[in-house]
Amino acid sequence: MGNCMDGIRNVCDRPKNTNIKLSLPVVCFVWQLSMIILFGVFVRYNEESDTHWVDYRKENNITSDIENDYYFRYPSFQDVHVMIFVGFGFLMTFLKRYSFGAVGFNFLVAAFGIQWALLMQGWFHSLDYTDGKIKIGIENLINADFCVAGCLIAYGAVLGKVSPVQLLVMTLFGVTLFAVEEYIILNVLHAKDAGGSMVIHTFGAYYGLSISWVLYRPNLDKSKHLNGSVYHSDVFAMIGTLFLWMFWPSFNSAIADHGDGQHRAAINTYLALASTVLTTVAMSSLFEKTGKLDMVHIQNSTLAGGVAVGTAAEFMLSPYGSLIVGFFCGIISTLGYIYFSPFLEEKLKIQDTCGIHNLHAMPGVIGGIVGAISAAAATNTVYGDLGLENTFDFTGPFAKRVPTIQGGYQAAGLCVALCFGIGGGIFVGLVLKLPIWGDPADENCFDDEIYWEVPEDEESPVTVFSVIDLFVNSRHPNLWFMKIISAVQ
Amino acid sequence: MGNCMDGIRNVCDRPKNTNIKLSLPVVCFVWQLSMIILFGVFVRYNEESDTHWVDYRKENNITSDIENDYYFRYPSFQDVHVMIFVGFGFLMTFLKRYSFGAVGFNFLVAAFGIQWALLMQGWFHSLDYTDGKIKIGIENLINADFCVAGCLIAYGAVLGKVSPVQLLVMTLFGVTLFAVEEYIILNVLHAKDAGGSMVIHTFGAYYGLSISWVLYRPNLDKSKHLNGSVYHSDVFAMIGTLFLWMFWPSFNSAIADHGDGQHRAAINTYLALASTVLTTVAMSSLFEKTGKLDMVHIQNSTLAGGVAVGTAAEFMLSPYGSLIVGFFCGIISTLGYIYFSPFLEEKLKIQDTCGIHNLHAMPGVIGGIVGAISAAAATNTVYGDLGLENTFDFTGPFAKRVPTIQGGYQAAGLCVALCFGIGGGIFVGLVLKLPIWGDPADENCFDDEIYWEVPEDEESPVTVFSVIDLFVNSRHPNLWFMKIISAVQ
Amino acid sequence: MGNCMDGIRNVCDRPKNTNIKLSLPVVCFVWQLSMIILFGVFVRYNEESDTHWVDYRKENNITSDIENDYYFRYPSFQDVHVMIFVGFGFLMTFLKRYSFGAVGFNFLVAAFGIQWALLMQGWFHSLDYTDGKIKIGIENLINADFCVAGCLIAYGAVLGKVSPVQLLVMTLFGVTLFAVEEYIILNVLHAKDAGGSMVIHTFGAYYGLSISWVLYRPNLDKSKHLNGSVYHSDVFAMIGTLFLWMFWPSFNSAIADHGDGQHRAAINTYLALASTVLTTVAMSSLFEKTGKLDMVHIQNSTLAGGVAVGTAAEFMLSPYGSLIVGFFCGIISTLGYIYFSPFLEEKLKIQDTCGIHNLHAMPGVIGGIVGAISAAAATNTVYGDLGLENTFDFTGPFAKRVPTIQGGYQAAGLCVALCFGIGGGIFVGLVLKLPIWGDPADENCFDDEIYWEVPEDEESPVTVFSVIDLFVNSRHPNLWFMKIISAVQ
Repeated sequence: MGNCMDGIRNVCDRPKNTNIKLSLPVVCFVWQLSMIILFGVFVRYNEESDTHWVDYRKENNITSDIENDYYFRYPSFQDVHVMIFVGFGFLMTFLKRYSFGAVGFNFLVAAFGIQWALLMQGWFHSLDYTDGKIKIGIENLINADFCVAGCLIAYGAVLGKVSPVQLLVMTLFGVTLFAVEEYIILNVLHAKDAGGSMVIHTFGAYYGLSISWVLYRPNLDKSKHLNGSVYHSDVFAMIGTLFLWMFWPSFNSAIADHGDGQHRAAINTYLALASTVLTTVAMSSLFEKTGKLDMVHIQNSTLAGGVAVGTAAEFMLSPYGSLIVGFFCGIISTLGYIYFSPFLEEKLKIQDTCGIHNLHAMPGVIGGIVGAISAAAATNTVYGDLGLENTFDFTGPFAKRVPTIQGGYQAAGLCVALCFGIGGGIFVGLVLKLPIWGDPADENCFDDEIYWEVPEDEESPVTVFSVIDLFVNSRHPNLWFMKIISAVQ
Repeated sequence: MGNCMDGIRNVCDRPKNTNIKLSLPVVCFVWQLSMIILFGVFVRYNEESDTHWVDYRKENNITSDIENDYYFRYPSFQDVHVMIFVGFGFLMTFLKRYSFGAVGFNFLVAAFGIQWALLMQGWFHSLDYTDGKIKIGIENLINADFCVAGCLIAYGAVLGKVSPVQLLVMTLFGVTLFAVEEYIILNVLHAKDAGGSMVIHTFGAYYGLSISWVLYRPNLDKSKHLNGSVYHSDVFAMIGTLFLWMFWPSFNSAIADHGDGQHRAAINTYLALASTVLTTVAMSSLFEKTGKLDMVHIQNSTLAGGVAVGTAAEFMLSPYGSLIVGFFCGIISTLGYIYFSPFLEEKLKIQDTCGIHNLHAMPGVIGGIVGAISAAAATNTVYGDLGLENTFDFTGPFAKRVPTIQGGYQAAGLCVALCFGIGGGIFVGLVLKLPIWGDPADENCFDDEIYWEVPEDEESPVTVFSVIDLFVNSRHPNLWFMKIISAVQ
Repeated sequence: MGNCMDGIRNVCDRPKNTNIKLSLPVVCFVWQLSMIILFGVFVRYNEESDTHWVDYRKENNITSDIENDYYFRYPSFQDVHVMIFVGFGFLMTFLKRYSFGAVGFNFLVAAFGIQWALLMQGWFHSLDYTDGKIKIGIENLINADFCVAGCLIAYGAVLGKVSPVQLLVMTLFGVTLFAVEEYIILNVLHAKDAGGSMVIHTFGAYYGLSISWVLYRPNLDKSKHLNGSVYHSDVFAMIGTLFLWMFWPSFNSAIADHGDGQHRAAINTYLALASTVLTTVAMSSLFEKTGKLDMVHIQNSTLAGGVAVGTAAEFMLSPYGSLIVGFFCGIISTLGYIYFSPFLEEKLKIQDTCGIHNLHAMPGVIGGIVGAISAAAATNTVYGDLGLENTFDFTGPFAKRVPTIQGGYQAAGLCVALCFGIGGGIFVGLVLKLPIWGDPADENCFDDEIYWEVPEDEESPVTVFSVIDLFVNSRHPNLWFMKIISAVQ
């Protein structure tokens, strides 16, 4: 930008080309066609979603169709699906003129991401070595949704500042990185992470923050007037908040063990989230004038407990343990919005539109630590011999592992998530810095007009021009004028 | 309208009576009373929802309460219920001043329709010949919701142009026709249609389009200024879109076979819908200036894959097969909005407010064809002997049917749906043309003011009158006047 | 207020201190810490959510994890959770400038209430006498949500007129009273109330109405201009209405008996609600000018059938019985809004913001009566011997009870709910009258500005000041002035 002529307004930004008429359709078509080809080569139904289930049942003495994994997980799956599309989508509608982008690009990114995730996760986790095919069932759908959640968290950091093509690129790389770190954490390290505090939230948040750091915009205040909410956009955002909050027990229990595992994960999450709401309200009130509440905190920090209880949700964390986790996360997350977000932007040059550092990064790390501690503290007395073995899968090659060692591996898992998030984010940020993606100029950030046909609102603010026009074009303007004059006299 | 005096504005429309103070309450009361009487005579609990279940279990060696069909289908049922009331209702809120009518009349029509559907479908499918009673359980509730979906699709074509009484009449006939065509397609022809591409979408769409054709309004442009969206109404509509999109796997799997049938239907639908989103975005961007996206496409065409995969959802369509179906439906549906809708209105005189031709009619027909082809192509190798028999119910009188023949019957089913839709729609359209239903005049279409008490918005645009009034009534108007004068000088 | 000087406007109200910077954080922190301590002392997982489940299964010959109560109730639980947080929250967003308070305080109150309810209900219902611990599982979570529902109903009566601290106090006492009356009704009297017509709705409504009566504000018309809706706030409220309406079958069946009990409760509720919609629409249209519909009725009275069918939902009410209950409740509830609410306010001095008398109080009482009658009318012929015993739990100390006697106890239960609601409400109302809770002045009711940081809306009405400012500050004001002058001449 060295060749910009100073003094001439916008001359640097004007050439910014936000035309995505070529790039967006090409990316969508080519990638979707690739998905079809790769699915054609690799993806098949697993034994529980294949018509051979009826034979499989007989061979394995499964007494009832209700034993199909579908019935254990389908209700949770649909709840998770709502979190991904309505939860994340509407949570980001808080900006006054970026609701289309928030809901719409979230929709696009997630729809692509789940397909790519089925492949990437499939190669690592569901490959049938007898025929080289990925065999999918309901658990794969949930995991694909989970994987996409990581990318949507990252979207929160760059909301309003990137083009949909950039988002798709972010998702392509994000899902790929996710699948690898997930494999390392869950399979190589054999760490447990049912609700994904580490695998999803820590990774996703640092991935997004690193991208945002690389894409730092020093002149972002040019679109400052759009970087805020209006009354109704805040109400829309509460739809997102509440569906995330309500269905988080399903999120953390969706892929937990059948029976007590899912049951306990739901209870722990329910309690942690309830606790977070109270401390969020307390902190928000404490730091605002006359104790007023700030919608930003209510929309976001109330969710921190769900993030932080993710890893330990299926452990014997105890009901009061969950409450304690939620208690501190509400405090830390709200403090983050008040003190840490300005610091991040001013000192570390990280612009974080939705405050994912406060909602996902810090609570995610806390969740990893809580998981490591509670794993290390697990005892046969509390879990029972069989329960301990079941909960931590101390079977096969891991049959000799003990809780304290497991705690160490949990901590190692957290580090892996951090490294992948930061490293991957910096790399992808550099890719996204290439001047080919049609991202908006600084003064056009947070504005749906750039990428959407926006309807002209009847309720748009009346300008002096329209008032004068009405005046001039009214049938008896002199009448009005006389009225003014006489009133003045 | 031959006796209208030309030159006098609105003289034809002014006498249009939209008073429904008599007709609406009478229809609601009489029909609801009829429902009570007919339910009293005909409807009882089935063995799984009756207190005798406890005896039935023992007699039939059912080992657990969890074998009750309720637990196989209840989660899907509630999702379908959300699609009917929130999904369809909010999808239609996109009009700037017809959100009350969209959500409210959708609510009314569906609440009546499900009762009438329980009876009509009950007589055809759930009649217990031993005592002449209809025995209902959870599957009947789902089917009633499905039946109503057909009528709500039809509502989309006439949205904003009919009175609630007309909608109730449309639903009465629509449900009746639906039950008959469904019986012919599913029972007589023994076609399969788990997600209702033919039975629900094809029938419903052509039913609505035919009605709209008969009710053609040549002067509809008089209310053109209301036939569009505002910013927030588009966001409300996305609530409808997303709940339809997310819960469509439940829709297509709700009445599929226990076990692998439901499991597979959910997977296929999940994939088809994901694929549709990408091609919809691609097409929308390709045909708009500078690659901008159009909310109309995102709100509607993204759902086309769910429609088209309805019939084949429980077949062994393969994951990549689902992606292919979704791929083409996104393209075709978006092209429909761009090219076909204007053609329909100008040439064929069909005014289709929500574009149901692009979202339900074309994808529904495609779904029927995909179903026929994939049924005809079914083999014992792919399905397994038992699987093939189970999936297509080649039992009892149909034990000798083979896949190729089944494909033919599937195609015949599609024709039945088309005939019932078009024929029924023309008949009902003529009924609705009678001048007794209180429908709005051309200039009052798409306006909630006609049938609703609408609150006066504080945020209504400021007119010159209100500004002047404020000015005149302010305490020191001369101060303001002086300010103006001095600024001018 | 005797020392107010007349003639000086607002002098009585001005000193009203709505600063809750101290009280709200203190209450939140102290109560949440108390919860943690009490949970630490008392609450543990039950056998189905504990890792010992795997041993328990083996010892008790439970063949499959799917027999865990989690799978019987989890889908209903999540639906109930949505009703509590989105349903109640959004139903109250109808006020033009109190949507933050509606959704946000509902969120806060419910999050505290569920924790306190787990303890209170736990001591009465889930105390394990062997170790003095409360053992919780999925059913406890549902019951906690139910308990909170009673308090949220009460919130509807005082919406916009109390501070969040008052709401928390209301909830603390409300949950306590609820747990006691519930214990008396369900355990001592052995009445059945699956959907809580008595326990939840009757108690909650009279609790709220009594509080509102004690807190009567004679000068509430000072904030009359805010006590109404705008177009979009009415659409937001329909989100609440529909999620309540759709998931009510889950509400009434969530804690019903496994198998036919849950199945039947869902069917009965589905039907009652459908019937209510039609009679509500009929009545609304009948009493408005030219048959227009009133959003207040559609938002509220359509739900009355779900309330009224609560107690009898798991009985053999018959499908037509459910329709009849819904039929009358739609009529009565709508008449309540038209005639009874004004009467309540003017004559009985009860200001009921949301009309909970019409939605919860009257239908709740009707529900209790319907329950008593249908219990009294139960016969072995209709229920079967085993079915009768199962449905009414005529076992243990109640083995000798017969239906007619049961009917009497049901009626007694209704009286208990009424007494606790009215008595408890008066007591708590007096507590809330203390001048320490930061409640708003009469002219600040229904206004989010008092307790929330409200964003400045771009779309806010243009005032004469802003127009003049624009005029004065525009670059060429004389141009505009000339235009006016020339137009006038």
